[in-house]
Amino acid sequence: MWQLVESEFEPERNLNQETLLALGNGYIGMRGTFEEGAGSGMRSVEGTYLNGFYESDPIRYGEKFQGYPDVGQTMLNVANAKVVRLYVDGELMRWENGRFLSHARTFDMRHGLLRRELRWQSSSGKEVAVESERLVLHAHKHLALIRYTVTPLNFSGNIVLYSGIDGQAKNLSSDDDPRLGAGFDEDVLQFRDRSITAETAILHQQTKTTGFHVVCGIHNKMEGERPFTAQPLVDDEYRLGHRFAIDAAQGEAVTLVKTIAYATSRDIDEAELMAVVQGELAKGTAVGYQALKTEQADFMADFWYHADVVIKGDDQLQLGLRFNMFHLLQSVGRDGHTNIAAKGLTGQGYEGHTFWDTEIYILPFFLYTNPAISRKLLEYRYHILDKARQRARQMAHPVGALFPWRTIGGEECSAYYLAGTAQYHINADVAFAIKRYYDATQDAEFMQQFGAEILFETARLWLNVGHYNSDQFHIDAVTGPDEYTALVNNNAYTNLMAAENLRFAAHIADWLQQEYPHTYQTLAEKIALTPEETSAWAQAAAQMFVPYDEERQLLAQDDSFLQKAVWDFANTPADHYPLLLHYHPLVLYRYQVCKQADAVLAEFLLHDQFDLAQKKRDYDYYEPLTTHDSSLSACIFGIMAAEVGYPDKAYRYFIDTAIADLDNKKGNTKDGIHAANMAGAWLSIAFGFGGMRVGDGLIFNPVIPAHWESYSFRVQYQGRLIEVTVTQEASTYKLLDGDPLEVQIAGAGKWVM
Amino acid sequence: MWQLVESEFEPERNLNQETLLALGNGYIGMRGTFEEGAGSGMRSVEGTYLNGFYESDPIRYGEKFQGYPDVGQTMLNVANAKVVRLYVDGELMRWENGRFLSHARTFDMRHGLLRRELRWQSSSGKEVAVESERLVLHAHKHLALIRYTVTPLNFSGNIVLYSGIDGQAKNLSSDDDPRLGAGFDEDVLQFRDRSITAETAILHQQTKTTGFHVVCGIHNKMEGERPFTAQPLVDDEYRLGHRFAIDAAQGEAVTLVKTIAYATSRDIDEAELMAVVQGELAKGTAVGYQALKTEQADFMADFWYHADVVIKGDDQLQLGLRFNMFHLLQSVGRDGHTNIAAKGLTGQGYEGHTFWDTEIYILPFFLYTNPAISRKLLEYRYHILDKARQRARQMAHPVGALFPWRTIGGEECSAYYLAGTAQYHINADVAFAIKRYYDATQDAEFMQQFGAEILFETARLWLNVGHYNSDQFHIDAVTGPDEYTALVNNNAYTNLMAAENLRFAAHIADWLQQEYPHTYQTLAEKIALTPEETSAWAQAAAQMFVPYDEERQLLAQDDSFLQKAVWDFANTPADHYPLLLHYHPLVLYRYQVCKQADAVLAEFLLHDQFDLAQKKRDYDYYEPLTTHDSSLSACIFGIMAAEVGYPDKAYRYFIDTAIADLDNKKGNTKDGIHAANMAGAWLSIAFGFGGMRVGDGLIFNPVIPAHWESYSFRVQYQGRLIEVTVTQEASTYKLLDGDPLEVQIAGAGKWVM
Repeated sequence: MWQLVESEFEPERNLNQETLLALGNGYIGMRGTFEEGAGSGMRSVEGTYLNGFYESDPIRYGEKFQGYPDVGQTMLNVANAKVVRLYVDGELMRWENGRFLSHARTFDMRHGLLRRELRWQSSSGKEVAVESERLVLHAHKHLALIRYTVTPLNFSGNIVLYSGIDGQAKNLSSDDDPRLGAGFDEDVLQFRDRSITAETAILHQQTKTTGFHVVCGIHNKMEGERPFTAQPLVDDEYRLGHRFAIDAAQGEAVTLVKTIAYATSRDIDEAELMAVVQGELAKGTAVGYQALKTEQADFMADFWYHADVVIKGDDQLQLGLRFNMFHLLQSVGRDGHTNIAAKGLTGQGYEGHTFWDTEIYILPFFLYTNPAISRKLLEYRYHILDKARQRARQMAHPVGALFPWRTIGGEECSAYYLAGTAQYHINADVAFAIKRYYDATQDAEFMQQFGAEILFETARLWLNVGHYNSDQFHIDAVTGPDEYTALVNNNAYTNLMAAENLRFAAHIADWLQQEYPHTYQTLAEKIALTPEETSAWAQAAAQMFVPYDEERQLLAQDDSFLQKAVWDFANTPADHYPLLLHYHPLVLYRYQVCKQADAVLAEFLLHDQFDLAQKKRDYDYYEPLTTHDSSLSACIFGIMAAEVGYPDKAYRYFIDTAIADLDNKKGNTKDGIHAANMAGAWLSIAFGFGGMRVGDGLIFNPVIPAHWESYSFRVQYQGRLIEVTVTQEASTYKLLDGDPLEVQIAGAGKWVM
Repeated sequence: MWQLVESEFEPERNLNQETLLALGNGYIGMRGTFEEGAGSGMRSVEGTYLNGFYESDPIRYGEKFQGYPDVGQTMLNVANAKVVRLYVDGELMRWENGRFLSHARTFDMRHGLLRRELRWQSSSGKEVAVESERLVLHAHKHLALIRYTVTPLNFSGNIVLYSGIDGQAKNLSSDDDPRLGAGFDEDVLQFRDRSITAETAILHQQTKTTGFHVVCGIHNKMEGERPFTAQPLVDDEYRLGHRFAIDAAQGEAVTLVKTIAYATSRDIDEAELMAVVQGELAKGTAVGYQALKTEQADFMADFWYHADVVIKGDDQLQLGLRFNMFHLLQSVGRDGHTNIAAKGLTGQGYEGHTFWDTEIYILPFFLYTNPAISRKLLEYRYHILDKARQRARQMAHPVGALFPWRTIGGEECSAYYLAGTAQYHINADVAFAIKRYYDATQDAEFMQQFGAEILFETARLWLNVGHYNSDQFHIDAVTGPDEYTALVNNNAYTNLMAAENLRFAAHIADWLQQEYPHTYQTLAEKIALTPEETSAWAQAAAQMFVPYDEERQLLAQDDSFLQKAVWDFANTPADHYPLLLHYHPLVLYRYQVCKQADAVLAEFLLHDQFDLAQKKRDYDYYEPLTTHDSSLSACIFGIMAAEVGYPDKAYRYFIDTAIADLDNKKGNTKDGIHAANMAGAWLSIAFGFGGMRVGDGLIFNPVIPAHWESYSFRVQYQGRLIEVTVTQEASTYKLLDGDPLEVQIAGAGKWVM
């Protein structure tokens, strides 16, 4: 189960398929569109995205207040370099012309490519076989490839291929769905320069507002024995490429190899962009298509060696899991300056923004399968730390840093602060990820260079946000993870995670002072840190107030949640979900109804602060109140269902998670994948069924769904590679690499392996 | 002290003066601009407004959710009919030309007019005296008048007068201040028709989006002995009028009488608008300037007979009070279909919207001085009741009505729901005003025709908004009057006022059933009212939860207010007020800091539910937390200061209230008067110093500031006109009209007068 195969084309599912069949390498993302473009009348988003490349637009407010972000950031659909068009007798091979005799697309996750095979009959009765392969190269962030092969089946004669760039890219928008975001006109990318030679075509464009530069280049090379003529073409400021008129022969394949390169001024000096793209194209053509394809397969083999999860006994879930992990790899920025968007590089939902999804959902997947990538995600936070400091000042905090709820470049872009800036827990989420990362890697160099400073600045903010009420530390007027409850006092998740932030910051301050006193001193001077502050962190953590209903013995989501009326689920029509699209926020806020895991999430992350009975009571209380209208919810409830003893529920939540995009369960996969949910599928295996926890070392407490034969997953931890295999009879733990390690197996105590 | 006199012109104060010197009659409002227009470089808003006439514009949201209003409504600056221009030797008499030898404007509140007297020397040395009078006629809602007299002082020869209409009106806007609102381009009013004759000029325009029609007409007539030629002129689609070339003689006055009429399709059929305006002009010219001026003076005399407050010993306050009452009269709609905007008809602040300001602040002034007008204000609510029902459905309430937080035409226009739609107390405020009105007028006919239906529909909503928690009725997720605290549970003001709404609705349901069973039945059928509902109202009122801090013996503003940290007032720079312009709402919401009276307001309105000690404790607690950044605050604190025994504070708050606009204390009088605050000045006299309360009849408990000789005010109540006079020695109560009435005098028991 390594391939997603589309054997029939259903035009009404096109937008959805474009997302599913998207390719990427963490820098370039290309939706799974056809080389020739969508058929007329077919809905399509010809999306190509570059991680970290965005345009800004003023955010309009009915009423605007102090501290509201002035401008948003939107991941931009850039020049489309996938364009290859085949003409037979002047007729374009496309959906609305002639007849497709067969159609198949194979999304090959083992080798990291998309293959397309078809037979097409022109209106004049001429038949061709077309095979194309597309790769976005993991090992070369600027490069992508298309190999396009045409074979005349029942004729000999002229065919024409056009291969070019279309720089007139338009961004989608929606008036109805707040999750989609801003649109831009077709001229958002403005012409700056171009170059065209016999085999290459390069287009240099610039955004209007941010002034970012982007250069897209292609190299076109015909292969095969047949004679052809080639003609460079410039249509207008947006379109250029090469036209090949080929004297084709029946049964003889002709092949176009198209090398594609993108680079932007976000990481390369503007003056060098054209040269860099030319160099990348030259490198790509010099190495050659086959060698690059092999390199890609090698890269993928290494990825799967560390990340693969094997489920025996459920092929669809097996496919779903691999699909999810593959898309995560394709979406994640790996240069320390880019991150992973909520929708990856596959669509424009949420405008390409990065949220807490990264730290709480996605990062653990990479941390335990590819820790180097998880470090890069944390470095991203370090690189936007100055902007987070500025944001804290805008929010009237004289010290500390406040990370943006949603952003690309580091500035807060949330236009609805109640489910945005008010979610101060983002700070604690980042700190929590640093703690997790440090625990799993013992990367003291990272901690000195990046981690400690983030921990200190986030801890500082909590002291300024909260206050002591009697001898308890309160945090008022925030929004927790559950966005159907906003602007509350003492959200349990926030307070618990803030305490963890404060505690760990104080701990690292001590550690740094002892182990690396010079580093500590330099940092303390840089940020004017006093010893009083670090001890105040420990104190606030120790005295953190956590709302609790003594009578019902429940962790309260916040001070007032449990006093509200319970939402009338019985009288809510099925088509009124997700509720946020059908009810004014005020209506939702008035009731006990949760969009997603909140208190329950805190009990997953901070697992050793709650006993099993408490977790079960809270699970039983909050689960019926939760709509899972957020894709961040099902995986958490599934993991906790496994822990508190509901294996059937765990399994159902896992299905919802694992095939959410494959089955378009949220109805908006067209706008892009749900990256956090995809990572949630891996979390569901490791933390859910595998019962993995990290306390004083690794802990496993596995369960297995009744109809599975077995499952296995691998974990990188403190320099080891461990394989966990669970069958109906037993669980086995294998050290594949590294020094012996003690792990704790539930019911079996501690074992060294 | 009946006149506001401007004896020197300060161009930098022009915007402010335009507001102060505005004239109106509750339908037409004209800012106090010069007939010839502002001087070049001088800031000016050439504002003419018609009550209830607005344009709509889409409200833009960064993120838009279900139930958000799609469009706003903005009171429109309509065609300017005040234009009169004087030319001497072709030179326009205006600020930047020639030289003004003298300048004076008199805002005559006793007679209801604005007089202007000046001497101007042209660049060629010719001197003229100009005197103009301007009236907007209270007795003729469509009519206004200008009399413009020119006398050559040192020459004889030609002068030119142009008198016209300028239909190219532009609406102000501001990007920085959320209180100002939407702007429109100059073409918001589009040409439809015009007519011009020897003496009249009429312009018919239409708004682009709402499609409302407005017709502005003028009639120009020259008086005096000097020969002249008249020429009708049409400049373009916006501008038309008459040019008079006059053979003037030294020392001989020539006078232009300009009659102005406005009418709109908001209350007159579109097809008849031109004819109606022609008819109004004909009527105005037939009656004649002097007769209309006398009629205006009579109208004002009657108004002052009932409304005037006399303060002996403080001239500035005396002037301020009259100024306030005069502007309230000028601003208030009196046709049952229009209301009073927060800024009256004097400027574009708050977009011409009506708020709860009407019911809680302004209506009592009219109720006790001119009850017929207060009834019209309540009829307005009845006429938008269907829209309030629709709004309730949008907010997911299957029954009841929810009045808009801000509106002109009846639709919710609040773009920031936390300080808008969330202020559900608007419903209780309307109900409270009905209760007050009914108590003071015993108007059973109103109650049957309008009042009961509003009471029932608002009471219904509370039952749907709130819920029982154990045996107490809770109302969650609302915002109370204090807009520096939002989205809270059990706001004390809201819950107390909702209980009053429920109780009175239940009482009126009983009364109607007994006294007018047929009316009751018809209404119950119309709105499908059941006996179970009305008893549920009484029950919810009886079991209404009111948050109270037992330890400190304080009425809590809401469930969590008293647990928050107190705002750091000591470290807040003086220039950071009003706080809303300097801090993100989240920052404000995190602290105990109030924009305005909230719990204290409830204790004023529902005075007999709290004993004096409670009121004093709450006053002492909340006053230091309150910034009075809202103009609705000072008057309430002043009134309560008088009650709880702080006469000095009462006096200081009264000054802040009484001369707030005259002294531009809020810094934004340029955008219009603060109508609620103006009414608050009257409330400060009657309810504050006079200690008037309405319980089981009228109650008085007067105090008098130390340096006042005396004050007196009049109250209409249940068909009586009562005069209260308070000196340092005694208070006297005089029945000026009506049957004997028992009143209660604090410390002196009940007296029949």
